[in-house]
Amino acid sequence: MQFNGYAAHGPQETLSTHEYDDTLDDNDVAVQITHCGICHSDLHLIDGEMPMGDFPFIPGHEIVGTITSTGSHVTALNEGDRVGVGWQCNSCKECEWCLDGEQHNCPEQQATCVGRNGGYADGIIVDKDFAIPVPENVSSESAAPMMCGGITVYTPLSKYAEPGDNVAIVGLGGLGHFGVLFSDNMGCNTTVISTSPGKEQQAKELGANTFIEATQEQLSETKNEFDVIINTAPANLDWDAYLGALRPKGSFVQVGASPGSIDFEPFGLFPADKKIVGSHIGSPSRIQEMLNFAATNQIEAATQQYNLENVNQALDDVRNGEARFRAVLTP
Amino acid sequence: MQFNGYAAHGPQETLSTHEYDDTLDDNDVAVQITHCGICHSDLHLIDGEMPMGDFPFIPGHEIVGTITSTGSHVTALNEGDRVGVGWQCNSCKECEWCLDGEQHNCPEQQATCVGRNGGYADGIIVDKDFAIPVPENVSSESAAPMMCGGITVYTPLSKYAEPGDNVAIVGLGGLGHFGVLFSDNMGCNTTVISTSPGKEQQAKELGANTFIEATQEQLSETKNEFDVIINTAPANLDWDAYLGALRPKGSFVQVGASPGSIDFEPFGLFPADKKIVGSHIGSPSRIQEMLNFAATNQIEAATQQYNLENVNQALDDVRNGEARFRAVLTP
Repeated sequence: MQFNGYAAHGPQETLSTHEYDDTLDDNDVAVQITHCGICHSDLHLIDGEMPMGDFPFIPGHEIVGTITSTGSHVTALNEGDRVGVGWQCNSCKECEWCLDGEQHNCPEQQATCVGRNGGYADGIIVDKDFAIPVPENVSSESAAPMMCGGITVYTPLSKYAEPGDNVAIVGLGGLGHFGVLFSDNMGCNTTVISTSPGKEQQAKELGANTFIEATQEQLSETKNEFDVIINTAPANLDWDAYLGALRPKGSFVQVGASPGSIDFEPFGLFPADKKIVGSHIGSPSRIQEMLNFAATNQIEAATQQYNLENVNQALDDVRNGEARFRAVLTP
Repeated sequence: MQFNGYAAHGPQETLSTHEYDDTLDDNDVAVQITHCGICHSDLHLIDGEMPMGDFPFIPGHEIVGTITSTGSHVTALNEGDRVGVGWQCNSCKECEWCLDGEQHNCPEQQATCVGRNGGYADGIIVDKDFAIPVPENVSSESAAPMMCGGITVYTPLSKYAEPGDNVAIVGLGGLGHFGVLFSDNMGCNTTVISTSPGKEQQAKELGANTFIEATQEQLSETKNEFDVIINTAPANLDWDAYLGALRPKGSFVQVGASPGSIDFEPFGLFPADKKIVGSHIGSPSRIQEMLNFAATNQIEAATQQYNLENVNQALDDVRNGEARFRAVLTP
């Protein structure tokens, strides 16, 4: 099958049209893409900052579309089904992690747009297990950015936060906005911590109960308060202050492949069983759970749509922090 | 009641005899001390390195002894019962942590020898809930150092390790030796990582399956191997190497109030849901569980006994790493 999209032809180059062929294997589905979100990881890949395959490649890993054909071993999905595809598009299906429903920890995991072509295109072929059905009452423009940006914060919230918990979301960009939407709808008391005081109103409109400006003064007043802190911002934080802001047994979750380094005194963790946990994306079943949760709670992402042919403008807006909160490309 | 012991009269001073009075309240028990382990925290307290009350004070918080009298509200313990007392000797009994069986996270927790007198003495008065019955077939010289050194490693093993897991114990001192004993008896595949190659034989005699010298070369060969790493050594480790040695979803546990700082790249946690957790002591019910586990599995600590009047010699030996593996004072 032939697909057309926009590829980076070299590090930091603007994207231009690209055509490629791919083959539908027995376990694959072909998806006609209707929506693709832009994730910061795409920028890192385009800039050549993440280990990856060769240029040219088509970025994009927040995909929603319609199945146009299915391989001979595919039974649970059918032509016409609306599905989402995220950061991961395949795994080995044989290792302990795959067999335990933790496909995102498979050492052979295949990323959707690393060493292959992704979603800034009219179509894509992926393994059936990584094409997740989108429930009827979740819009495609919401579901697309949930496939990576959403699941990145949904997974740790579903693992570490309980209804009623005090949850802090650090940073209010694409990931942070999903953090507030999910945390609020899980019944958590939600605080946004941001370096931009101007974002207070947006935070509260999304569902935050409280807004804290990320100054040393404000943070030092926040002691033993949060059951869960999810950092969607770069890692160069005042770690001792943030660990001090955790309640006993609290979890600080570092998501995303952030720059910066994590640096703190052991005493910050020690006296009250606090922890720092890493979290990346989620398994196919966790993604399905998130989409169902979004359907049940009528969660809509705040997106800004761009026609696919304006992809370079969209990328610039994401780079400059001007897309609120997630840019989504449509053909 | 009057008690006699050995107190530090000023920072870094040698201990000398000290007599003091204490009162038995309704919820208290008085314990005639037969054994008291020496923990490194005692040294930090004697040296004035930890925040604490005034000098003089009697150190010691790994106590075993016999109840000699009980307050009027004490019903579950009786005169003649053999009990252990650890780092903590009271809590508020009212806060969310106390009510949830997490007394070691109580913000009002009282330490046995901070701001009061501890176990290098002939007796002590403590709250009934923190005098834990010692099962018949655990010896007092084993139970004493378990009350702090033991529970410090038992708690994270019981929370994070499952039978069959690959567990690494970093450092083979008092805590490390308990780590090996408990991990081995929990059915875990146990590795000791130590800077002292001479400790290999001791490690294996205690039950370790494998010994790794903590050199950069050896560590860099150890990738994605351990479900749980418990660090009983100072915190100034090669953190990226140790996080690399964790399996996906693995837990690095930092115990004790270690010097040094924790410093690593976020990517060390990120790609496989790894975590760094703090852990300190354990609740009364966890201590009871540990003592029962020791009884079931006939676990005996490796101790070196000193008469209480030779306490300064014993402290010197602990300082110089010459006590294998835990010094225990007896009157």
